[in-house]
Amino acid sequence: MTEVEVKKAQESLQDRLAQVIELLQRQRVVEDLTHRQEGHHHDLVENLVHRQNLVELQRKLDDLHPADIAYILEALPLEDRLTVWQLVRSERDGDILLEVSDAVRQTLIADMDDHELLAAAKEMDADELADLAPELPRDVVHELMESLDAQQRERVRSALSYDEEQVGALMDFEMVTIREDVSLEVVLRYLRRLKELPGHTDKLFVVDYDGILKGVLPIKRLLVNDPEKKVAEVMANDPVTFHPEEDAYDAAQAFERYDLISAPVVDKSDRLIGRLTIDEMVDLIREESESEVLNMAGLREEEDIFASVWRSLRNRWAWLAINLITAFVASRVIGLFEGSIEKLVALAALMPIVAGIGGNSGNQTITMIVRAMALDQVSPGNTGRLMRKELAVSLLNGLIWGGVIGAVAFWLYGSWSLGLVMTGAMTLNLLLAALMGVLIPMTLTRLGRDPAMGSSVMITAVTDSGGFFIFLGLATLFLL
Amino acid sequence: MTEVEVKKAQESLQDRLAQVIELLQRQRVVEDLTHRQEGHHHDLVENLVHRQNLVELQRKLDDLHPADIAYILEALPLEDRLTVWQLVRSERDGDILLEVSDAVRQTLIADMDDHELLAAAKEMDADELADLAPELPRDVVHELMESLDAQQRERVRSALSYDEEQVGALMDFEMVTIREDVSLEVVLRYLRRLKELPGHTDKLFVVDYDGILKGVLPIKRLLVNDPEKKVAEVMANDPVTFHPEEDAYDAAQAFERYDLISAPVVDKSDRLIGRLTIDEMVDLIREESESEVLNMAGLREEEDIFASVWRSLRNRWAWLAINLITAFVASRVIGLFEGSIEKLVALAALMPIVAGIGGNSGNQTITMIVRAMALDQVSPGNTGRLMRKELAVSLLNGLIWGGVIGAVAFWLYGSWSLGLVMTGAMTLNLLLAALMGVLIPMTLTRLGRDPAMGSSVMITAVTDSGGFFIFLGLATLFLL
Repeated sequence: MTEVEVKKAQESLQDRLAQVIELLQRQRVVEDLTHRQEGHHHDLVENLVHRQNLVELQRKLDDLHPADIAYILEALPLEDRLTVWQLVRSERDGDILLEVSDAVRQTLIADMDDHELLAAAKEMDADELADLAPELPRDVVHELMESLDAQQRERVRSALSYDEEQVGALMDFEMVTIREDVSLEVVLRYLRRLKELPGHTDKLFVVDYDGILKGVLPIKRLLVNDPEKKVAEVMANDPVTFHPEEDAYDAAQAFERYDLISAPVVDKSDRLIGRLTIDEMVDLIREESESEVLNMAGLREEEDIFASVWRSLRNRWAWLAINLITAFVASRVIGLFEGSIEKLVALAALMPIVAGIGGNSGNQTITMIVRAMALDQVSPGNTGRLMRKELAVSLLNGLIWGGVIGAVAFWLYGSWSLGLVMTGAMTLNLLLAALMGVLIPMTLTRLGRDPAMGSSVMITAVTDSGGFFIFLGLATLFLL
Repeated sequence: MTEVEVKKAQESLQDRLAQVIELLQRQRVVEDLTHRQEGHHHDLVENLVHRQNLVELQRKLDDLHPADIAYILEALPLEDRLTVWQLVRSERDGDILLEVSDAVRQTLIADMDDHELLAAAKEMDADELADLAPELPRDVVHELMESLDAQQRERVRSALSYDEEQVGALMDFEMVTIREDVSLEVVLRYLRRLKELPGHTDKLFVVDYDGILKGVLPIKRLLVNDPEKKVAEVMANDPVTFHPEEDAYDAAQAFERYDLISAPVVDKSDRLIGRLTIDEMVDLIREESESEVLNMAGLREEEDIFASVWRSLRNRWAWLAINLITAFVASRVIGLFEGSIEKLVALAALMPIVAGIGGNSGNQTITMIVRAMALDQVSPGNTGRLMRKELAVSLLNGLIWGGVIGAVAFWLYGSWSLGLVMTGAMTLNLLLAALMGVLIPMTLTRLGRDPAMGSSVMITAVTDSGGFFIFLGLATLFLL
């Protein structure tokens, strides 16, 4: 990606979006007019206005950073999005495709012919190509690979060979390597000959003749040290390194923890094969937190907010279907006690309180645990302690709030025993919620699944069925 | 904060934590023994083992990066946490305090006396002091401020004058400024005299004699350009700048969007007053996504997973209490229809299905909208379109899944009309869920609140009460 000057940020993105939308609307008015007066002699004039509008919009777009255009494309409904996309200068297509979300990228790629796709991809580095390749038509990928030189092709292949959650899929190959036996003066002269340095170059990688990483030379040290000194004297010998098979999210956490800007990726014999940069890591941190939010709510993936109704349905069906089954189970639990409800209809009115509060409390627990697990704070050594704490919190909540609601039940229905059953059921269901709020994410992790995965749907299923069973069961035992 | 060499990351954090826990446990066994055999002649030996263990643990800690120690402190229960904290060399206290989460920091500060706090704080920069100040005892802050020179004191005051969500509270004052009329050669010599550059220096700030920002000189350009050139020829004239009053989260998004490492903060007359760096922004991005997750679940704030039961209760009570009220309302809605339930007890078993699926679907919608709003993708211009889409998705879900569940109701209870009421109620409740899933976060935003704030509790309240009312109302109208 080429470096692009960034305009002052004072003009907010929302403003820019509003301007584009206004231009699009003006455009549409003109189109409407042209349409209605077809064949009329005003045509020429309107065509002129039409074209003038498009030119203005295009000028606007030319001024924007690719990331800003990406933002605008994401915030526009499909039709407008494609109008804007066609106005973007083709040499910027590649940069923008790399910036937009996956969902929006699909809609843009679907609108491009092979020729345009090839042109956009030709500007890209190997790691960027590898990012894009899985979404391109097969023959385009084939033609692209043919057009690359052997080294580039090897790099794309290597990047594609890793899972998208591995370091190898995120590393890039743009880096400056130097030898340890030269002076800083020589390094400075070497850099000057390069004319341009790769983005996010905060350190140079020191390698020997076999490409083995010997250390890194932070640019800061290069600048403040005496140019007569040798690289070996000044470099850091034991830098943080990553392996291509490592989990990318662990790498992102290391970047965050150690405030890294870039870091070398080495193979098993310490040979330098690429580097990671903070920009990719920031994207990863954001994606990871977002997928946590989405997963907890039972959404399969990021959804383009203007996705078609059909696409949205597919994204949401899986968990809705599961919810349908769990709701059916809860319903059958109630069905077991229809006799009791017939005799004491107050039970029907009170039972959702027990289930609802259990669900809310369980969701609080599970959110806490999922977060702590994402931060690696839960280990086998402290599970027991965590569980005891959650159970203690639930017990107190159950006795206190259960007591309140028991008193309310007494006040409403004038039965002390009904109030006591209510308090008891609340307490037991809150304990169940705490237990499952800890066990569900832990079990999912042990099974190798994402602990956030639909956790909200699952905990609610347990606290619903469990709550109904406990409350109606206690009532049947003690009240009838 | 001083620069610390980071050990190879190959040894995972989990491993390090396990090692510390093991040492702590060995420690505790020894303490137990010493305790049981008090006055015994073995005392001396055990004291020796005891001390040896502590020395080993201390050596282990000395090897670790402050961020790693912070991680270990966060993952340990209070008692062990304080044992480790006391073993940390006091000159590292400051760095570690800046790394730990707010909840854990409180427990550490509570364990330190004024003298220790002053010693830890003396090593800090103005912006770091300002971060910590609100949590320190009043007299410590007073004494600290006295000990600062006038410029530092002014900086701390200025940082404290901003809200923690404003750029001014996050900027630091460590930056290298240069003049535009000197040559790059002069700049290189100047840097060499500085001996050390501030962390995250990817650009130098070019100011005039009044301190007005004229541009920035990226280090990359300094390195690749001819040293004879003047700064003015090489610098970027129109960099992204921020104002101290700006929203910090907007700044973080700009960092992410434009791949920035550092950026100048200027006042209204363009005078350079500080800078932002990517490390602070990454922390902010993570905190923001986390508070979204927590808020949706109705947790007030980040919770130390080993917080006392009492602290956890307080963190969770606010939303539980609200949930208690909403559950009570839902219960009263059912109370209105007790007569109908008495006549047809199947209603009691079926009603939670309508409410539950509405809640799940509403949570999906609200999660989507909250996310899109966080990304600034929702504007008044597209609200209508979004709403129509969500309603369409719900209508289809209602007809399809509502149809399925209607058929199941027929199969269970043998009544076609009951099945039809079920389908109708599901559809209407899903439409209600979609409507409120869009309106709740939008209204919260319009009221200046966080759109994620307890949104899950609120949508569930609506779909519960609404679902019961719709289903039981339809049933009363058409079945009885």
